Amino acid sequence: MSHKRLLIPGPTESPAELLQQQSKWLIGHRGADYTELYVGIIDKLGKYFETQHNRTVLTSSGTIWMDMTARNLVKKKALAGVCGAFSKRMYQTIGDAGKEVDPLNVEWGKAHKPDDVLEALAQDDYDTVALVHNETSTGVRNPIEEIGRAIKKEYPDIMFVVDAVSSAGGDYLVPEKLNTDLMFTSTQKCFALPPGLSIAFYSDAAVARAKEVPGRGHYTDLMAIHNYYQKKQQNPTTPNVSLMFALSHQLDRMLAEGNQARYQRHNEMAKYTQKWASQKMEMFPEPGYESITVSTIANTLGKNIGDLNKELGKRNYQIANGYGDLKEKTFRIGHMGEWTLPEIKSLLWHIDDIWGE
Amino acid sequence: MSHKRLLIPGPTESPAELLQQQSKWLIGHRGADYTELYVGIIDKLGKYFETQHNRTVLTSSGTIWMDMTARNLVKKKALAGVCGAFSKRMYQTIGDAGKEVDPLNVEWGKAHKPDDVLEALAQDDYDTVALVHNETSTGVRNPIEEIGRAIKKEYPDIMFVVDAVSSAGGDYLVPEKLNTDLMFTSTQKCFALPPGLSIAFYSDAAVARAKEVPGRGHYTDLMAIHNYYQKKQQNPTTPNVSLMFALSHQLDRMLAEGNQARYQRHNEMAKYTQKWASQKMEMFPEPGYESITVSTIANTLGKNIGDLNKELGKRNYQIANGYGDLKEKTFRIGHMGEWTLPEIKSLLWHIDDIWGE
Repeated sequence: MSHKRLLIPGPTESPAELLQQQSKWLIGHRGADYTELYVGIIDKLGKYFETQHNRTVLTSSGTIWMDMTARNLVKKKALAGVCGAFSKRMYQTIGDAGKEVDPLNVEWGKAHKPDDVLEALAQDDYDTVALVHNETSTGVRNPIEEIGRAIKKEYPDIMFVVDAVSSAGGDYLVPEKLNTDLMFTSTQKCFALPPGLSIAFYSDAAVARAKEVPGRGHYTDLMAIHNYYQKKQQNPTTPNVSLMFALSHQLDRMLAEGNQARYQRHNEMAKYTQKWASQKMEMFPEPGYESITVSTIANTLGKNIGDLNKELGKRNYQIANGYGDLKEKTFRIGHMGEWTLPEIKSLLWHIDDIWGE
Repeated sequence: MSHKRLLIPGPTESPAELLQQQSKWLIGHRGADYTELYVGIIDKLGKYFETQHNRTVLTSSGTIWMDMTARNLVKKKALAGVCGAFSKRMYQTIGDAGKEVDPLNVEWGKAHKPDDVLEALAQDDYDTVALVHNETSTGVRNPIEEIGRAIKKEYPDIMFVVDAVSSAGGDYLVPEKLNTDLMFTSTQKCFALPPGLSIAFYSDAAVARAKEVPGRGHYTDLMAIHNYYQKKQQNPTTPNVSLMFALSHQLDRMLAEGNQARYQRHNEMAKYTQKWASQKMEMFPEPGYESITVSTIANTLGKNIGDLNKELGKRNYQIANGYGDLKEKTFRIGHMGEWTLPEIKSLLWHIDDIWGE
């Protein structure tokens, strides 16, 4: 069956080999077979992300970890970076969960900088800072390593939360180097799997903090997840077993490729796309802060992006228009997961061909 | 590949035809293709459950709806029926989410009765009542239709919440007849699909109530889910597209079988199992309140259930020991989803054969 190859910023294309892992016969999630599967996943996540932080996989989209941030880590007040649509959602979710939160706004297309974060932190008594690493709407890659270092140097007790939904597994991220207390992602972006599972890395300090925060609930309770794994090496609630099979298999593939090689492959696709874009239009993010997993391109030539995507559809490709207010003003190419440079070159050739260039 | 046929109370056996639906190429969850798929699912759920109530499918296990109950419906105080391990979890979750809640306890193995519920409701100013329909640990089927009618007659403003995780799709349940404001289930029980999606039916009154309850968060916000569907006929957060393919396909099969036929098939398997059990031991639930999807049998002969399951495993069958404190004192046979009477007869024959009876 022909199908549209997904070069949108997630869900990205999932190879047949991974999709088919989901067709295995089910196993009970309270037996030894499942424990072996799940502990294997947790171990492999530790290896790939070079981390000693605690890991968990939850049956949900990545967004639930915005709720988890509010429910488990925010004691009194949070500061949430807002640099695009998804980071705005984090800010709103913390407030919607009934916690105090201030936005740290930057113009869309710009990145957060360590000094701006420190300046904001000096204004009030914050206990949590939440940032999006790779803002999927603007294509901006925030310098979270520098920001994490700056925060923890001055405020070691602040919980540093990073949404790495559209970068983890493609970009090179090590929780200890980033100084995160919580970093989360999900399966349908750089892991090249169907959506349905979220993956989180959390520090022991995050566990200690959660103990002090009341009203965590059950499904959204980090302590319930943590304690159940300590005791039984399983999940407190019924997990998506089919997708766990696929995740386990994909982590083997990712470890075989290597996290540095995977990073280089993503970087290579991004650099090529950036060069192609800059020769005719402009990249939307400020220079030096371009994402390596999704390129947001400013449509300075006023091309009709809806029409472009229709034509690409006839050639079995799908890219993404700009997000929300950025529709038609920008467009987005997701070069993540299992895509490779030759495929990206082919896509860009098709765009040139459609535009008669 | 040989595999253990799952006759545990969920996940139940998922046929290859359904598992393979998950191998379809992914589609984006913000496009017209997905809207068509999802609206189709919502329509089919309406038909199968003969309901005008709102429906939604969330990427999570069913348990999240215990959190959703607390976050969206409990304004001041809830009454939660506790008749086994899963209903106890509902009681605890409402409390863990920071809401006031009283338990309505009955001895495990017994069912809740309308008069007991009314008596409890007279004691305090409750705004929500939560019950489990089919308590998976004790195998008790609570008379929720009679209870719902009794509650709504005296207290029309109370939100009536029913956890139908291990019965919906097997037992015959129509939200309007049950007077529920929220009824929820998940895919790995009577729907015979992998775990990973939860399904909820909620009244307009539940939407009105949620509007009045602050701190709902985002992933757990019924209003966010409701409004997004009204506006865009999609999900506010990224759904598990692969499992949606399988759910859509299975709903076609369920509608082809018919909800009455499906109920009769489950009832038939339950009656046969009850008769078999009563001839040698006893059913654990009080007479007249036995589940039609999971039979919990009192191990009055003191058989070693762990050993039984090992022997069954060699014959590629898996049943379940008793839950928690009921381990070895009871054992459980899940006859749900796509299982049929001949298969149940075969399983019971194998048990007799192992026991030399």
